[in-house]
Amino acid sequence: MAVPPKPPVGEFDGGCVFIDGAYAPLSEGKISLFDWGFTRSDATYDVVSAWQGAFFRLDAHMDRFFASLATMRLVIPYNRDELRQILHGCVRAAGLKDAYVAMVCTRGVPPRGARDPRLAQNRFYAYALPYVWIASREKQLAGIDLFISERQRIAAESVDPKVKNYHWIDLVQSMFDAYDRGHDTSCVVDANGHVTEGPGFNIFMVKDGVVHTADRGVLEGISRRTAIELCERLRIPLRVAPLPADEVRSADEVFLTSTGGGILPIAKIDGRPLKQFPGPVTSRLHGAHWAMRDEAAYRDPVDYRDRTP
Amino acid sequence: MAVPPKPPVGEFDGGCVFIDGAYAPLSEGKISLFDWGFTRSDATYDVVSAWQGAFFRLDAHMDRFFASLATMRLVIPYNRDELRQILHGCVRAAGLKDAYVAMVCTRGVPPRGARDPRLAQNRFYAYALPYVWIASREKQLAGIDLFISERQRIAAESVDPKVKNYHWIDLVQSMFDAYDRGHDTSCVVDANGHVTEGPGFNIFMVKDGVVHTADRGVLEGISRRTAIELCERLRIPLRVAPLPADEVRSADEVFLTSTGGGILPIAKIDGRPLKQFPGPVTSRLHGAHWAMRDEAAYRDPVDYRDRTP
Repeated sequence: MAVPPKPPVGEFDGGCVFIDGAYAPLSEGKISLFDWGFTRSDATYDVVSAWQGAFFRLDAHMDRFFASLATMRLVIPYNRDELRQILHGCVRAAGLKDAYVAMVCTRGVPPRGARDPRLAQNRFYAYALPYVWIASREKQLAGIDLFISERQRIAAESVDPKVKNYHWIDLVQSMFDAYDRGHDTSCVVDANGHVTEGPGFNIFMVKDGVVHTADRGVLEGISRRTAIELCERLRIPLRVAPLPADEVRSADEVFLTSTGGGILPIAKIDGRPLKQFPGPVTSRLHGAHWAMRDEAAYRDPVDYRDRTP
Repeated sequence: MAVPPKPPVGEFDGGCVFIDGAYAPLSEGKISLFDWGFTRSDATYDVVSAWQGAFFRLDAHMDRFFASLATMRLVIPYNRDELRQILHGCVRAAGLKDAYVAMVCTRGVPPRGARDPRLAQNRFYAYALPYVWIASREKQLAGIDLFISERQRIAAESVDPKVKNYHWIDLVQSMFDAYDRGHDTSCVVDANGHVTEGPGFNIFMVKDGVVHTADRGVLEGISRRTAIELCERLRIPLRVAPLPADEVRSADEVFLTSTGGGILPIAKIDGRPLKQFPGPVTSRLHGAHWAMRDEAAYRDPVDYRDRTP
């Protein structure tokens, strides 16, 4: 185990990376062309947000990250407390109140000529950037138009969707499908034509007062979990089951969940306006999500003070 | 279009990268942590070999690379002649006679806060390393033990296997499956249990004098193509069709094809010796492959002379 250094305070304008065991400006955030994290996308990661100076559900994100590491047989040289300290350190070093904070582990570079991943030294990276919205404020107000692409999300039999991973060619190509047709963003389906997820978000629909979201083949997003928990709290009926594309198209309301925006309403599917935008259930959940960020149980405040003597 | 600079001669010991439009030592081969080539594995690449001072089938590899770029909607700032010049330049700058030469294009980094891949400036990288064997010489002689994992290769409905890509979590995890059981390397199957490919190679079997290889769901490897063409030349019966795992297990001979070794015999499947190792058909094709490298039509010799005045 390595001991992370003391983070600087507000030293790195616009963001901070933690690389090779030290805090550094974003421009130093680079990985080797020969790291399997690039040449095999043999990596896992997680992203947590900080808002108004506090992390939201950091423990849940760290739990998922450690679970992903175990499934991928990746190891980082830090324990949970040290990881927390590094993530706080990145935000503090960048002086950000609202931040997008990533933790990343790659396989690393095996010795020259070897093709055995067991011989590689795994690499750990973290960084804090200004908070990223999955869609711009203007687009959120104007109403996001979501295209349901026929491309299939990589199946769970190939890559475990519970392990947050960078295998996104299907998702990125679906974005081009959407742009080609004049839509704003996209989602993909499974082999049965059920809606799975989009690039960086889970999908929910509301029909006759019941909230629905996919049960499998999707990332178990922390924001998805928040939406599910808020339905329980607010006694909104919830059904977690496959989402046929046609039912999503004819839903009363549709919303997406993401660390990059929380709970955001969708206005149109495939260019056709939904019955309600923003719908009453979505608006209620949206407000409850932002209120939940103020609850002590989910907040992990960043200490921005300079403690050097 | 950019004009690639004149390559140095034998300046970079152990390998050379071409990055940001210039030749550099391997240690400078780095990409941004924020390049979608890493954070979405939104990239394509190709690998060609040079042997005894000449590239083998460089045109075929460049054809495939440009086709992959088009499908992925990626653009490099070099035309075909310039690309050839850069690849030759990497080998020349590293002074390598036997080389593993890669060409890579990533999506790049979209402007801060934007999540639109159309706004990113695509990035091009190339490098030459000492020739890489898919298995060590010792292992080749002792006999490679191939494990058929039950993991499924990412389906064509999600990621086009004809586009050479870095989505390898399924393949890398199958390697761990193999190591756990004491085998040397691995391959994965499709949803029907048919053998597809391994980490960096295609698979062939020989049964009653007929050579078989998978028809779909696999990379259309250039070495696979070479093996197919050699069967035609040598009038060895060939069948390109799905490969049931049990038929591979009970085959007379099995071999793999890869830029990292050409045509290599497999000795065991799941730990059980095959009927013949190395088998007569495999040995014939192995020899024909190395002979083919000497044919002028497929050779592209590197000029290692220093032409500075």
